Amino acid sequence: MAVLTFDTYGKTRVRLLQVRRDGARHGVTEMTVQVLFEGDLAESYTAGDNRKILPTDTMKNTVYALARRKPIASAEGFACDLGRHFLSRLAHVHQVKVEISETPWNRIADHGSAFTHGGHERRTAACVFTRSAHTVVSGLRDLQILKTADSGFSGYLKDEYTTLPETTDRLLGTILDADWTCSSPVQDFNGLHAAIRSKLLDVFAAHHSLSVQHTLFAMARSVIDRFAEVDQIHLVMPNTHCLLIDLSKFGLDNPNQIFMPVDEPSGLIEAKVSRD
Amino acid sequence: MAVLTFDTYGKTRVRLLQVRRDGARHGVTEMTVQVLFEGDLAESYTAGDNRKILPTDTMKNTVYALARRKPIASAEGFACDLGRHFLSRLAHVHQVKVEISETPWNRIADHGSAFTHGGHERRTAACVFTRSAHTVVSGLRDLQILKTADSGFSGYLKDEYTTLPETTDRLLGTILDADWTCSSPVQDFNGLHAAIRSKLLDVFAAHHSLSVQHTLFAMARSVIDRFAEVDQIHLVMPNTHCLLIDLSKFGLDNPNQIFMPVDEPSGLIEAKVSRD
Amino acid sequence: MAVLTFDTYGKTRVRLLQVRRDGARHGVTEMTVQVLFEGDLAESYTAGDNRKILPTDTMKNTVYALARRKPIASAEGFACDLGRHFLSRLAHVHQVKVEISETPWNRIADHGSAFTHGGHERRTAACVFTRSAHTVVSGLRDLQILKTADSGFSGYLKDEYTTLPETTDRLLGTILDADWTCSSPVQDFNGLHAAIRSKLLDVFAAHHSLSVQHTLFAMARSVIDRFAEVDQIHLVMPNTHCLLIDLSKFGLDNPNQIFMPVDEPSGLIEAKVSRD
Amino acid sequence: MAVLTFDTYGKTRVRLLQVRRDGARHGVTEMTVQVLFEGDLAESYTAGDNRKILPTDTMKNTVYALARRKPIASAEGFACDLGRHFLSRLAHVHQVKVEISETPWNRIADHGSAFTHGGHERRTAACVFTRSAHTVVSGLRDLQILKTADSGFSGYLKDEYTTLPETTDRLLGTILDADWTCSSPVQDFNGLHAAIRSKLLDVFAAHHSLSVQHTLFAMARSVIDRFAEVDQIHLVMPNTHCLLIDLSKFGLDNPNQIFMPVDEPSGLIEAKVSRD
Repeated sequence: MAVLTFDTYGKTRVRLLQVRRDGARHGVTEMTVQVLFEGDLAESYTAGDNRKILPTDTMKNTVYALARRKPIASAEGFACDLGRHFLSRLAHVHQVKVEISETPWNRIADHGSAFTHGGHERRTAACVFTRSAHTVVSGLRDLQILKTADSGFSGYLKDEYTTLPETTDRLLGTILDADWTCSSPVQDFNGLHAAIRSKLLDVFAAHHSLSVQHTLFAMARSVIDRFAEVDQIHLVMPNTHCLLIDLSKFGLDNPNQIFMPVDEPSGLIEAKVSRD
Repeated sequence: MAVLTFDTYGKTRVRLLQVRRDGARHGVTEMTVQVLFEGDLAESYTAGDNRKILPTDTMKNTVYALARRKPIASAEGFACDLGRHFLSRLAHVHQVKVEISETPWNRIADHGSAFTHGGHERRTAACVFTRSAHTVVSGLRDLQILKTADSGFSGYLKDEYTTLPETTDRLLGTILDADWTCSSPVQDFNGLHAAIRSKLLDVFAAHHSLSVQHTLFAMARSVIDRFAEVDQIHLVMPNTHCLLIDLSKFGLDNPNQIFMPVDEPSGLIEAKVSRD
Repeated sequence: MAVLTFDTYGKTRVRLLQVRRDGARHGVTEMTVQVLFEGDLAESYTAGDNRKILPTDTMKNTVYALARRKPIASAEGFACDLGRHFLSRLAHVHQVKVEISETPWNRIADHGSAFTHGGHERRTAACVFTRSAHTVVSGLRDLQILKTADSGFSGYLKDEYTTLPETTDRLLGTILDADWTCSSPVQDFNGLHAAIRSKLLDVFAAHHSLSVQHTLFAMARSVIDRFAEVDQIHLVMPNTHCLLIDLSKFGLDNPNQIFMPVDEPSGLIEAKVSRD
Repeated sequence: MAVLTFDTYGKTRVRLLQVRRDGARHGVTEMTVQVLFEGDLAESYTAGDNRKILPTDTMKNTVYALARRKPIASAEGFACDLGRHFLSRLAHVHQVKVEISETPWNRIADHGSAFTHGGHERRTAACVFTRSAHTVVSGLRDLQILKTADSGFSGYLKDEYTTLPETTDRLLGTILDADWTCSSPVQDFNGLHAAIRSKLLDVFAAHHSLSVQHTLFAMARSVIDRFAEVDQIHLVMPNTHCLLIDLSKFGLDNPNQIFMPVDEPSGLIEAKVSRD
């Protein structure tokens, strides 16, 4: 017999842009929000009984209404407000998960009300509310970075399918995803995000890299060491390859100057580092 | 102190196209392969010691070499061959996960060696090999489907943010992702995949839908009921909305004829159904 | 002094899905429409005078209203209806260009009201209406095709940067764009589109190809030869490469069996063929 | 009879990353290059005679070799070097068109050899070389910008399909494409590009906008007025809509604070402005 063993539903890709109008100095916050419920919802699946189904369209409306009721101070704060709102009203819902992806906008020079889009990078926040607890994960996605010195890869395991030459000088590029959790309440999510992002970039830039794994750990460790409130950080770092072009057939050397970036294949390196 | 609490590495987006040349009647298999290792690898992260790191470039080469050694019979079979290969050779690796996404190609009429690309849909296979067990998950991604009759949504929970009108006749569109596992060895992964895909489409088309949840469960249950070897199926069905255009301002009715498809936002409905 | 030397404006990416409900047997047409005006519009640019600017939002509404007033029989027909509508009403508009891209949907088995998305390929129609004439261009986009036999490339020009080996047996893949115009009125745009598409595929499949240029011309010529109403056809055929993997380092041959498809770089071959 | 009336071929999406290593202070230039030939090439199409066809693979190799022979000083300069190279060697080629799209990279703080990707925006250069002349077009693509004040749209033409409310305060967003040509030789393409980009942003930010057309012309005119060497500029500005959310059903006002950004549909406004 077929039985329902897991279910969840909600709304995804709710796009919101909030303009804060403090006189002539405006601020812009753009987000994409996802809300997912778990709970006592099985009858909607097994019998088409919708009496416990709050429409996903209502979730969308709620995102907009709550943003109007209180200006968004941080992605994490707004995610928690949404989670709390739904869980407090719907007794049959056991868990609300809110995920937010924030699109960066940067002010044009010192203009009060004009902005340029900040590119691919996203700031993220995920809050999971249950009856007994709630967790907050902060992070970033798609921060593409490249270092042109202090990166090598050698001394590795070889078998009969290994053709990669060892090198002490290569390009190291990645598109960083990071997520971190804090053990104590955070007063300033925006400031903490900026500081952790800056620390990750600094260590990436300065590290004498023996592998992506090596640099990933150095980056993660630096966050644990520097930020007492962070108790775990999870980094995903694809190795987005830049292939050195062989110009010898044309009588030319190529001392790490001319590369072909390729999107695929790529390495994929991932780890979690925690406070002991 | 910072400690490594999880790590994995591997190669992603390895693209492979295999041509089978049985006389003038060719066959084409296109796949994208991902290989991930877990094991005794911490020294590479914490000390830059690469002695246990098989390069991800070698993983890529291995994909191509194994495909040459034995023609690919199925995505599942090839994923298992790759997993077995790596685990049997590398004592310090505890788990190998191979994920394959297969791109469809269709023969042009009855030509022996010409094909059209099959679109967005992908067939997937994921195999996880450990020292004690291995699991195989078969599936599909991005199968976009639409039904224009027999779909309603009414009788749902309402609050002060609910504005959605109830309806007994709407469009129901989704982009189906499905994954299933089998409890007994599968003799013909290709045949089973085709049969499950066909069953999912048939039930989607024929179901008198009271909600996406309702139809999702009917589809999943039909697979459990029909295929004795399947012990669990996981479906993800976004509700990709088509908005009915209000033409009343122009003196026109619109009895479910003219819609605006929108990519975002969308509902998101997900469930697992298992054999009891 | 700065003078306005060209201007146009309009609406792009208007998405429309029309359901035709002939009893239980439904039909689905999905399109994306773009409308562009040229005319006596300079004051809107130079002085912010909007009195001759029909809002692009009105263009969008018109697309939906006209689709309701008369079922869409063909992309070309609907494009012409839209062009005629605007030009006949707005004396200061000198040209209306309507471009339509149609998304394919295929019926699921013999179900009356359920469909699968047809993938990346699009059918296109572009109509340009002026006071003195109108032109119709029919076409298709993103028809990805591959042949695994009867394709070579040799005897080409070489210089000191040429490293490509000559071959009499390679894969030939492309993502076809085609546009054609007719010299006489077309009674059945849908039938003509299907027949030309089929002819292009047949010639691609059967041609003994000495280069992409060679096959492109054979395809184009076959349309001119077969369809008396077509007076010009324009084909764009990128050469989407599949790289033969060198397995010799692993003691393996590779007689055109194992390839790596790459998205970039690609060749780009383009030509127009006309009736003399 | 079918005759060839236009043809061109070349290589597209050649990706190049050049690292300049001036001691510990590195520089990075990433480009995607396209090269297209026109000339006496008809026999390759009509007869499969490849004797005048320089392989597109050779074009790719040439891009890499020329980048090694001389460091890239500007996109325009490199495009011209490539055009000159091919035209001077191949007597049967009548025109070489080189198009370059440059990907921005920004230095991380003051690190010498670490960079972040600059996002969606691209700098472009297109050079067309013929036996008698060559032209250079400089530009940018995908510069996404938004202004939250000083933008209205009213006083426009209305018909029975017009439902858009007039407004004196709306968001104005666009994704700017710009191309410009110069009448006199340019000494510093990089400096000119930066100065024009900055001027476009400044005018966008400061303009009291009565329509997208109005702001587009002000931006274009400012470039003609300020930069004596520019003789024409072409701007394309989609109107990427942010929809004001109606919160009145929830007892909330919405004084231009909460919006839903939508990718489609969008307005499309385009013009060329020239020096008289």
